[in-house]
Amino acid sequence: MLRSIAYHGDHVRILDQQRLPHDTVYVHCTTTAEVWECIKALKVRGAPAIGMAAAFALAVWANRASTTNLTDFLASLRRERDYLASSRPTAVNLFWALDRVVARAATATNVTEARQLIENEALAIQKEDEDVCRRIGEHALSLMNDGDTILTICNAGAIATARYGTALAPLYLAKERGIHLSAYACETRPLLQGSRLTVWELQQAGVDVTLISDNMAAHTLATKPISAVIVGCDRVAANGDTANKIGTLGLAILAKEFGVPFYVAAPLSTIDLETATGDAIPIEERAPEEITHFHGHPVAPSGTNVFNPAFDVTPHRYISAIITEKGIVRDNYQEALAGLKQSEPALK
Amino acid sequence: MLRSIAYHGDHVRILDQQRLPHDTVYVHCTTTAEVWECIKALKVRGAPAIGMAAAFALAVWANRASTTNLTDFLASLRRERDYLASSRPTAVNLFWALDRVVARAATATNVTEARQLIENEALAIQKEDEDVCRRIGEHALSLMNDGDTILTICNAGAIATARYGTALAPLYLAKERGIHLSAYACETRPLLQGSRLTVWELQQAGVDVTLISDNMAAHTLATKPISAVIVGCDRVAANGDTANKIGTLGLAILAKEFGVPFYVAAPLSTIDLETATGDAIPIEERAPEEITHFHGHPVAPSGTNVFNPAFDVTPHRYISAIITEKGIVRDNYQEALAGLKQSEPALK
Repeated sequence: MLRSIAYHGDHVRILDQQRLPHDTVYVHCTTTAEVWECIKALKVRGAPAIGMAAAFALAVWANRASTTNLTDFLASLRRERDYLASSRPTAVNLFWALDRVVARAATATNVTEARQLIENEALAIQKEDEDVCRRIGEHALSLMNDGDTILTICNAGAIATARYGTALAPLYLAKERGIHLSAYACETRPLLQGSRLTVWELQQAGVDVTLISDNMAAHTLATKPISAVIVGCDRVAANGDTANKIGTLGLAILAKEFGVPFYVAAPLSTIDLETATGDAIPIEERAPEEITHFHGHPVAPSGTNVFNPAFDVTPHRYISAIITEKGIVRDNYQEALAGLKQSEPALK
Repeated sequence: MLRSIAYHGDHVRILDQQRLPHDTVYVHCTTTAEVWECIKALKVRGAPAIGMAAAFALAVWANRASTTNLTDFLASLRRERDYLASSRPTAVNLFWALDRVVARAATATNVTEARQLIENEALAIQKEDEDVCRRIGEHALSLMNDGDTILTICNAGAIATARYGTALAPLYLAKERGIHLSAYACETRPLLQGSRLTVWELQQAGVDVTLISDNMAAHTLATKPISAVIVGCDRVAANGDTANKIGTLGLAILAKEFGVPFYVAAPLSTIDLETATGDAIPIEERAPEEITHFHGHPVAPSGTNVFNPAFDVTPHRYISAIITEKGIVRDNYQEALAGLKQSEPALK
């Protein structure tokens, strides 16, 4: 299985997801600016992968920083943290990973120790993410039966995480155990993470996957035996409202209408108790050209007005369950999510 | 205003809608095979335009047919009719226009008269379509207020009809009268009739239009002041169930969830009392390459499984009103649609 993010001391190696499925190209980033650019340009995407990439960017920066004054070093580290945090506004996982690294560095007594703590913390985030994804997969699989077919959007898969993915984790675990699950993947306009990434990685793993365009979801739910819709998330508010790839809200409403359960696969790191409800989640709007152009080729008249939100917010009332690494939350999200977060090791 | 279909005696001139918005290219068809190919390849699309093109194809064929034996002529006409009818299975308007021409020809006493009757009937279909669209626009406009914003999918516009369009007709009439209506257009994957055609023709007419991808419809309904969703249709069953471009069903469900009225603009020619319910409407499935490729460029891995239905069926319970040229039907569709159809001149 490919690793989308790898740490190599003096650089972070990032799989360029914009060039998939046709070219498997890695970008070698030696500066925070290069990682920032990779995140901004969606070469790395998926909330956990973004968090990992940013954490490793701090580690590479630390290894290359020349100061021996701890105060200066930590002040610079915080500036790099703020800069990396500005790459994308919606995914809370980015801030969580950055803050975790910065908090650990702050416990150092000298720069050499700080460097080591930063590296250790970034590597721990990666290792924990693999474990988190496997456990999310276990819980999700407990909601499914042999022969089930799920519907998903975007890519909440292995390349969006350290391994296994979140929404796609049950498919990988099922495959390992000889349980047959199949999937319908929404292509996910405008950037086609579904067709380019989800179909690609499931195909590579031998999982039976069928591609549809996003506007085929209702007809697919109406005419095919879809057992569940399962999606990843970029941020879950304290009340369970969930920001995820644009189109998720529509799928949630359709799932409810067709009586199909709608599941959100959410590492605890994406749950943000500081955000009270979905209304407080900023929704990134991206460039019109993502919709009006395709590989540089215009598909709409010049001067077209465009509305291009990258995410939407699904109110918790449409969510049948939120699947975390610590278990499945079915309702009473406010209290249940707070309880799960409390059991996490606290950040200083 | 451009005419997408024009009759010239020895050929039908068809605006190649596949090459819009960048190239305005006309195809000159001198045979039924060429028109069949234009319909199949979506160079002409939109239920009324398809019906007109097919009717004119019969007129051009009749003008070129060399037989003077009426029985032979009518038998050949029926073969041409069956051939043209095989170009697309979902739009009932195609069959309606063809049968109307054939029925009129059958009243002739010689081939010369038959030719004239065919031409007259095909031209009458075009003239009536313009009138039908204008009247649909009048009724639709009565449901709207100055300043309203509508959401639509695909292209039920001027180039899909003789003039004005069906779902877009109120926008054109409003413009003529100084009433401000604006629109959000779903891009409409896989063939992007929304971005390529709807945005193009509304822009040309000076109507304020904003493009979104299909999966942005829910977020747009949640966050923008959308007053109504209005769509065209390819076939309406006797009970009001409506087949239209894939994605329509999803919009109808979303509209219901957000408390926004969902209107179908339907010429009576698209209402098919012979089809009892939506379950009986055949849904055309098209080639996987429409989703896996873009301008010949692959956007999914090779060997991708695809489900590519071109239409879906919206059950009548999601439809707030069906807007015909003879008035607005709000419920009790079975009886009301039959009543409107009875008032049409009967086909022999």
